[in-house]
Amino acid sequence: MSVTAAAGFRAAGINAGLKESGRPDLALVVNDGPLDVAAGVFTTNRVAAAPVHWCRSVLAGEHGSPGAARAVILNSGSANACTGPQGAADTAATAARVAELLAHDRPGPQPGSVLVCSTGVIGVPLDMPNLLTGAAAAVRALADTPDAGHAAATAIMTTDTVSKEDTLHLDGWTIGGMIKGVGMLAPGMATMLCVITTDAVVDAGTAHSALSRAAARTVGRINSDGCMSTNDTVLLLASGASGKTPAPEDFGAAVQELLGRLGRRLVADAEGATHDIAITVTGAITEAAAEAAARTVSASNLLKCAVAGEDPNWGRVISQLGTVPEAVCPFDPDAVDVAINGVTVYRHGALGEDRSTVDMTPRETRIDIALNAGDAAATVWTNDLTHGYVTINADYTT
Amino acid sequence: MSVTAAAGFRAAGINAGLKESGRPDLALVVNDGPLDVAAGVFTTNRVAAAPVHWCRSVLAGEHGSPGAARAVILNSGSANACTGPQGAADTAATAARVAELLAHDRPGPQPGSVLVCSTGVIGVPLDMPNLLTGAAAAVRALADTPDAGHAAATAIMTTDTVSKEDTLHLDGWTIGGMIKGVGMLAPGMATMLCVITTDAVVDAGTAHSALSRAAARTVGRINSDGCMSTNDTVLLLASGASGKTPAPEDFGAAVQELLGRLGRRLVADAEGATHDIAITVTGAITEAAAEAAARTVSASNLLKCAVAGEDPNWGRVISQLGTVPEAVCPFDPDAVDVAINGVTVYRHGALGEDRSTVDMTPRETRIDIALNAGDAAATVWTNDLTHGYVTINADYTT
Repeated sequence: MSVTAAAGFRAAGINAGLKESGRPDLALVVNDGPLDVAAGVFTTNRVAAAPVHWCRSVLAGEHGSPGAARAVILNSGSANACTGPQGAADTAATAARVAELLAHDRPGPQPGSVLVCSTGVIGVPLDMPNLLTGAAAAVRALADTPDAGHAAATAIMTTDTVSKEDTLHLDGWTIGGMIKGVGMLAPGMATMLCVITTDAVVDAGTAHSALSRAAARTVGRINSDGCMSTNDTVLLLASGASGKTPAPEDFGAAVQELLGRLGRRLVADAEGATHDIAITVTGAITEAAAEAAARTVSASNLLKCAVAGEDPNWGRVISQLGTVPEAVCPFDPDAVDVAINGVTVYRHGALGEDRSTVDMTPRETRIDIALNAGDAAATVWTNDLTHGYVTINADYTT
Repeated sequence: MSVTAAAGFRAAGINAGLKESGRPDLALVVNDGPLDVAAGVFTTNRVAAAPVHWCRSVLAGEHGSPGAARAVILNSGSANACTGPQGAADTAATAARVAELLAHDRPGPQPGSVLVCSTGVIGVPLDMPNLLTGAAAAVRALADTPDAGHAAATAIMTTDTVSKEDTLHLDGWTIGGMIKGVGMLAPGMATMLCVITTDAVVDAGTAHSALSRAAARTVGRINSDGCMSTNDTVLLLASGASGKTPAPEDFGAAVQELLGRLGRRLVADAEGATHDIAITVTGAITEAAAEAAARTVSASNLLKCAVAGEDPNWGRVISQLGTVPEAVCPFDPDAVDVAINGVTVYRHGALGEDRSTVDMTPRETRIDIALNAGDAAATVWTNDLTHGYVTINADYTT
């Protein structure tokens, strides 16, 4: 169901001829209201793509009301990043064309602003003739069916091997979403894009704070390969069509639950991965310190290779943990415990239980690091580093 | 020649039975004076191995005179890291035994302190009976010949495929060294260890400042796989046997030249690598900013895979460059140029010359990033990420 599960939304996914593979490459999600609330969080990369700059300006109210949007159009096949002034002009022209098409789609009030997302190879200009022709076809294909939602989720795939959708039904209202990406980010043919739709009645401020907080604790804590995309975008659209107004904390919890599930699917489909790895740091002095430590450990290629080889190599956990600056995350190295899949292989700075008793065969691998310095905890997800990753990113690049 | 090239030094490399492979695993370097000047730089990992703690205490003068040492004993086969109080006791016992053996080797003044280095798997206790027996055999094998220096360089190898030595002959004095490691650091069976010997007359302060400065600009700017070892150690021993006292700036230049050459050999032997990559950032506001930017780019698995696939994927350079915090390295993304092997594929924030004209076949790959923000520059070396790296670190781990 994904983006069409909530009332008030239509979607489409079509083949606009943007990808050499001939697979679907253009998705459209339209909010038919009554509300047109929108929120977004974006890559922190200083080299942000043209569509990221555009979305930020839309949500800031530079082209209409702040915190509002009528629709999102998303293309795969080109990231429209590092494409200079022409890239920015192409994004603006795409948004204008979709707004014009939607004005004819259902006559009524002013169509509002259109958000734009792109994913694919960096430095490749958009194929504007095909994109604009495709936009018209996408508007014609709009439907509020599960199939239409699935078609949209399929059209944003790059090196993803499966489409990724999920839905939560709550107390009289619904929230659903689609995501693409193969890790937090980055593969040359990828980026994380996510669109969440809900029929709850929320205002723009509530939507933005719920999305920001949820993203920081879910997709913000995935580190597949340490690389950050120029295009990462998570959008939330609210139609209000259910007539239900959830309490802000309930709304925030639902957004976090959904985005957590969607993020978990990114990890499960990460390029070449054979193990998903949850690195949980407990006993830190703050949640930020726990997150920093878990993130540092998640970046170790050596650890990721060890997990690929089903080797419970705690030495690679500890040596990586030791690179976290003390100012960021204070702890006493001699007080640390490390458990891998439930076996405490390292205890208080020295050997723990026999590592040969660790079962490394499950796809989900749990690495639990107890700092014994405080009460805060955080989990960062990563995946193993395999021949498959090298194959995808070296052997077959173009 | 390496560590025995300078007058006043003897070395040995033997098989003490510490490695299952049966290869040489114990090296000894002895300074016969007249000076016993010593300096060291070490890993900044908070989880430092017992021998690192020991060397720091020796050079601080906790076991004799500060900035002085008579010898270095180095073992492969175990890193003696994360081994708790027993690991510390084992290192101290090793040093004491070597000091005792050397007192009988050539009777004379008090034998002074002995430095200890270890490399190998983390969390494996030292085999002390074999190590102490081996130390006596190493003392008996000491010689000032090129063969003895080569034997020492061979005995410190782990996953290194070749021993790594070099020598510079200067104006009446000599400096030589040996190094081991397969990247800046870290592979579970590795670590960077380096011993440099010289017959120049230098004091401990000059030795320390020359070594610190040289290490920061050479081996400190290698980033093979982003992982930092618990054991990295670079030592400098000066015998004064040449009777020559170089100017401090000449001495420092020689140390930097030698350590740069040795470091270059680490990169060339990095695990699985098929390309050595020099990432040079120019036009930064400070050298530290240039180094931070180059170091960030060097950490991109995606870029490293692209180079393995001989793909001049500048998008992966730019997207990684964009993750450098502005406070660390200010620049305007639209002013940046990127050249790969001499072809400017990205110019002022947009497409540059045709990437198909870049020749990616040479082993040495040059990525030049002009920030156009200032006058400072720095180069960081890395290597490509290949199936060989995954094989070494996943498939065959124990």
